[in-house]
Amino acid sequence: MQDMNSSKHAGHGLLPRPLRLEPRWGRLDLGGGLRIEYPPGAPPPVVELARRFQARFGRLLGTATEDAATLRLGTTTAAGTHPALGDDESYRLRITTTGAELDAATPWGAAHGLERCLQLLDGDGEGTFLTALLLEDAPRLPWRGVLLDLARHFLDLPTLLRTLDGLAAAGINVLHLHLNDDQGFRFESRRCPRLHELSGSGGYLRVEEVAELVAAATARGIRIVPELDVPGHAGAILHAHPELAAGPAPATLPRAFGPSRYALDPSLDATWGLLEAVLDDLVELFPDTYVHLGGDEVHPDVYAFEDARRRAWMAAAGLSDAAAVQAWFTRGVVAMLAQRNRRAVGWDEVLHPAMPAAMTVQAWRGAATLEAALAAGHDALYSAGWYLDLNYPARLHYRFDPAAPTAELAAAEATLATEPQLADVGDGILALQAAAAATARSVTAVAGRGALLGGEACLWSELVTQELLDARLYGRLAAVAERLWSDPVAADEASFERRLPGWLTHLERVTDCRPLTGDPAMLWRLGVEPYERLAVETLLEALEPVRWYKRLLGVGGLASRREGRPPQRPYDADTPLHRPVDLLPPDSPALWQLRTALFAVAADPEDVSAQVTLRDFAGRWRMLPVQLAALEQRSRHFAALADRIEQLADLADLLDELVDAVIAGETPGMALRQRFGELVRIATEAVAETELAALRPIGDWLESRS
Amino acid sequence: MQDMNSSKHAGHGLLPRPLRLEPRWGRLDLGGGLRIEYPPGAPPPVVELARRFQARFGRLLGTATEDAATLRLGTTTAAGTHPALGDDESYRLRITTTGAELDAATPWGAAHGLERCLQLLDGDGEGTFLTALLLEDAPRLPWRGVLLDLARHFLDLPTLLRTLDGLAAAGINVLHLHLNDDQGFRFESRRCPRLHELSGSGGYLRVEEVAELVAAATARGIRIVPELDVPGHAGAILHAHPELAAGPAPATLPRAFGPSRYALDPSLDATWGLLEAVLDDLVELFPDTYVHLGGDEVHPDVYAFEDARRRAWMAAAGLSDAAAVQAWFTRGVVAMLAQRNRRAVGWDEVLHPAMPAAMTVQAWRGAATLEAALAAGHDALYSAGWYLDLNYPARLHYRFDPAAPTAELAAAEATLATEPQLADVGDGILALQAAAAATARSVTAVAGRGALLGGEACLWSELVTQELLDARLYGRLAAVAERLWSDPVAADEASFERRLPGWLTHLERVTDCRPLTGDPAMLWRLGVEPYERLAVETLLEALEPVRWYKRLLGVGGLASRREGRPPQRPYDADTPLHRPVDLLPPDSPALWQLRTALFAVAADPEDVSAQVTLRDFAGRWRMLPVQLAALEQRSRHFAALADRIEQLADLADLLDELVDAVIAGETPGMALRQRFGELVRIATEAVAETELAALRPIGDWLESRS
Repeated sequence: MQDMNSSKHAGHGLLPRPLRLEPRWGRLDLGGGLRIEYPPGAPPPVVELARRFQARFGRLLGTATEDAATLRLGTTTAAGTHPALGDDESYRLRITTTGAELDAATPWGAAHGLERCLQLLDGDGEGTFLTALLLEDAPRLPWRGVLLDLARHFLDLPTLLRTLDGLAAAGINVLHLHLNDDQGFRFESRRCPRLHELSGSGGYLRVEEVAELVAAATARGIRIVPELDVPGHAGAILHAHPELAAGPAPATLPRAFGPSRYALDPSLDATWGLLEAVLDDLVELFPDTYVHLGGDEVHPDVYAFEDARRRAWMAAAGLSDAAAVQAWFTRGVVAMLAQRNRRAVGWDEVLHPAMPAAMTVQAWRGAATLEAALAAGHDALYSAGWYLDLNYPARLHYRFDPAAPTAELAAAEATLATEPQLADVGDGILALQAAAAATARSVTAVAGRGALLGGEACLWSELVTQELLDARLYGRLAAVAERLWSDPVAADEASFERRLPGWLTHLERVTDCRPLTGDPAMLWRLGVEPYERLAVETLLEALEPVRWYKRLLGVGGLASRREGRPPQRPYDADTPLHRPVDLLPPDSPALWQLRTALFAVAADPEDVSAQVTLRDFAGRWRMLPVQLAALEQRSRHFAALADRIEQLADLADLLDELVDAVIAGETPGMALRQRFGELVRIATEAVAETELAALRPIGDWLESRS
Repeated sequence: MQDMNSSKHAGHGLLPRPLRLEPRWGRLDLGGGLRIEYPPGAPPPVVELARRFQARFGRLLGTATEDAATLRLGTTTAAGTHPALGDDESYRLRITTTGAELDAATPWGAAHGLERCLQLLDGDGEGTFLTALLLEDAPRLPWRGVLLDLARHFLDLPTLLRTLDGLAAAGINVLHLHLNDDQGFRFESRRCPRLHELSGSGGYLRVEEVAELVAAATARGIRIVPELDVPGHAGAILHAHPELAAGPAPATLPRAFGPSRYALDPSLDATWGLLEAVLDDLVELFPDTYVHLGGDEVHPDVYAFEDARRRAWMAAAGLSDAAAVQAWFTRGVVAMLAQRNRRAVGWDEVLHPAMPAAMTVQAWRGAATLEAALAAGHDALYSAGWYLDLNYPARLHYRFDPAAPTAELAAAEATLATEPQLADVGDGILALQAAAAATARSVTAVAGRGALLGGEACLWSELVTQELLDARLYGRLAAVAERLWSDPVAADEASFERRLPGWLTHLERVTDCRPLTGDPAMLWRLGVEPYERLAVETLLEALEPVRWYKRLLGVGGLASRREGRPPQRPYDADTPLHRPVDLLPPDSPALWQLRTALFAVAADPEDVSAQVTLRDFAGRWRMLPVQLAALEQRSRHFAALADRIEQLADLADLLDELVDAVIAGETPGMALRQRFGELVRIATEAVAETELAALRPIGDWLESRS
């Protein structure tokens, strides 16, 4: 940990990495707190910004006293009422031994600078301070987003408000809200109240809640891009308005996950009437220039119309096939948005020769569609490597530079299929990339190439509830955020992994997000008594969830899907998500600590602190079978992990012997390696959708010593 | 823990203890969540109540599905716009295997019932449920309050909002805000803006923030009683308006704690002009019928006027001495409040033959003033035994029944002076009680005895900041809350102590209050790195702060005060509160667990779970010297605790040997007892204002075995 620390003290622990940081001599002492000053006559957003950050600094440093250090906000030129794509987000922060100055062209830039200042706050046990430095910073790409899916599981206003603080800390400036899908419709529609009244069960954002959310986002320089997903994924809309279905309409609000046949009928005037009304609602609620219209995963059979009326309609419109029908529909929505001064974004299935270049395309299936969209003149967003619902570790998401040449980006995507942790799902990964390539071939290049605006991390919420959000989001979002913010020359996976634990701790400290400690209600739902909490945390820290769609589809479902049969899915929208696996972050932060201590003790066998850390892990693992015996009796969820618990106790003995060997200056011998290999064999099989992740750092370390 | 658990399953873990609870057969399964229903045409407060609790249940149980159990809210008669003293707060909750029904006369009663329902939520590892029962409940006393002091250290709006949830969980229905004192003026005065502009440094509540606070309190059935402390404690007022001083006016905003000579001059018209304006502000902001006017600790010298003008004024007003001057002042403020349809409350120094009986008296110095106030016809509130800033353990506060006969209450107060944990401060405790008795003798009984309205726990904030609030407040507030809510027949200290840990865990689960885990920023300020967190928590759990005014005055200051000299105080309003002692709750919750395990293993030496708990404590204590070595190097705050850390490691050996002896069926021998006695001798001296509290459960246990 030492090197992370010392680099942190020089300001290099920042995440995302800034454009330019020059260390200076000395420190600004913050023993008396920090007072933010702004020029007389500063515009209201700056005054409000100062007030908000004054409170945040106060929470960390104590209330500012007469001896407080001063941070001076410089003049900002007026920005628009709301942040907009392309706004100047740069800032310049100068910290000296006598004070700090922050200059930015817009309040959004100033907000970034203040977030950085929070992250730079330092302490050494004797006092708190800011290391003197000059920081000149600006994001690399203007659209740095995250998609949250409110449809599969609702995220309520308090959850979204705390999330805005987490996003701001990551330099994310777009919150893309997926507001409807088969399973729910999530905003109050004044003009079509059946939508939220009949299909908002589980929760929807009321008009005044959206206003509060938009105001809070604006204060943080975050744009909210709403998504109305049409014409597919329309189960919730059709539950309220079955008369608009192109194919089947659901008898009840759909609970099943996965692609459906619920799609709007573009041949009906009533469909367009509803769209007019809902889009009027949407643009009243959300001020951003961009609206996402979905356009993904329309089942081709649904638009393969056979009936006479629709065939005649197709003929009259000059539409030859299902793809043309969908393109015609999408063009219609794009035009409706244009009438409302809004620009459209769509998922990469909207790519079609008939699509207007004014539409922005979000490439979710691979580098191929990204390149095709740009070549066809569309502005584009990259998401393919950044699906956070797949439970990849952060370092895999860090591989993708959306602005890299297509061949490089495609090559990076291809590495996923050969990644050891994804060995068992590589074929599925390749299939999706192939589908993207097929779509890409359907469009042709034009003269005016589109612009890469940035990208979005996507956290689809089939297995995410608001209680589970923080552990699922931030560890991996950090990787995407750095790729979108920072110069790719500085991209360094090892450095990123060193800075990540500190950043997550920072989030717990300065926001209400709890990526490390989680929601205290969750252990209660699992039946964990307070005196069992530490033992359960020790167990969970040693586990990670299975990857890709292996959780969502299940082992059987995965096999069916590979064989082209519809999978029997273990989850639907009503399945309670309160088993141990639900609580697991995809990267266990405790195991970073185990890994660090292992390599530290190997480098210096006399590193007593690292020894104690390892003994502590071993000691806590060894006690688990006794400490959790009663819980295993009470709870089938923990009974299902009984073998894991015994395996961890075995691993404790092995870890202790390993440390003994290192201290004795011996190389771990063949017998010990064989026992480890045996444990790996037993523990590799997924148990209750978990992997015994604690094996990995020990295995890596053994490998490094052979 | 088993008995606590099983009683919890029968609904008896409730805190405060309800009036009547009849267990019924079976459970209401909550696997699908809980849906709150209300009658058509329910008034807006009921609809809002249902919405708020629906979200809270959802956070614990997951979003309600089609299979959700139903909780039906019955009809409530209309209550006033705001809760008022004497409102019907009763409710009746019936839980059966098929659903739950809640009836209450007012929305405030319904809110209590819903809080209870949250507290009754249960889980056994297999699922969540409510045990079937009939609960008929109503509070014993109508004024169940807590004083928070915003003057010495400000508490901002987010802190106060989360606190409202904590108070509601305790059945507290009055939040008494101490809004001004020497060190600060804490609300925006539209009519006298100098007050908050010059004396609100450190923070004040803006007009719109007060509105938000009052609205949130109202929704929870909590009255907010504002206190304008006059004529003494007026340093902040006089900093803004030095022309109104009866004695000295401060040159700068006072930072020192302790009684001052800053008091308003009642002989000036300008004083009364200011009071008119500030009271107009106050009643605009706070709708409650009651306003607290302070009246405490006016230095007698200040009103011993010698100058001719004031002597003439006194003579004209017929005032003979300083006490008469103060009484005349207070009568004037009472009259001004009456003109504004407000009733006055004052601290027990307001007792004076000239005081109107319409004034409510808050007895803070002892049973004597409580009885004197009631006898003189005043309604009264009890606070003397409930000063939470004195760091007493909860069980001491639990001793005081404000409605008990005076002799009994006085006897209970007298026990404090002989309490072993307070042995070194007993004389100070007695001195304060004597002062109360002197005041009491100054008034005489009248025919119409006043009513005991209830009482208030008081948390003066010289050593409390908003980051530290939760650990200081809730453990002891629970004792006061139960005394105010529950039938004294059911009062049982042992039962209270058994229920308390579960209640604190409950608070962490259902509110944003963190009485057990604290604010993650605090360990950061102490320079604790994330990998040191568990070790630091292990250390802090074994410590408790010193008691009574020993922290605030310091050992030297305490001695000076005893000798009647002004103490040299170690703290003022700018002293940073971020040392280890600041983080300590006065009752360490972890030590309850140690105590339980010790007695469990003694009762059944084969109780493996209790053995492991004790081994776990010993194991963690033993590692501390190594784990914290680097931190001791970096931080003088931890260096100061180096001896404590070594003592804990010694105690680890002793605890292990104790457990060995019990398992072997042996009584702990004399040698072991001698070593323990030695450790007690070394560790009894306060170190960095902490006590080695871990000794106490072990000592108690050894004593029980001798």
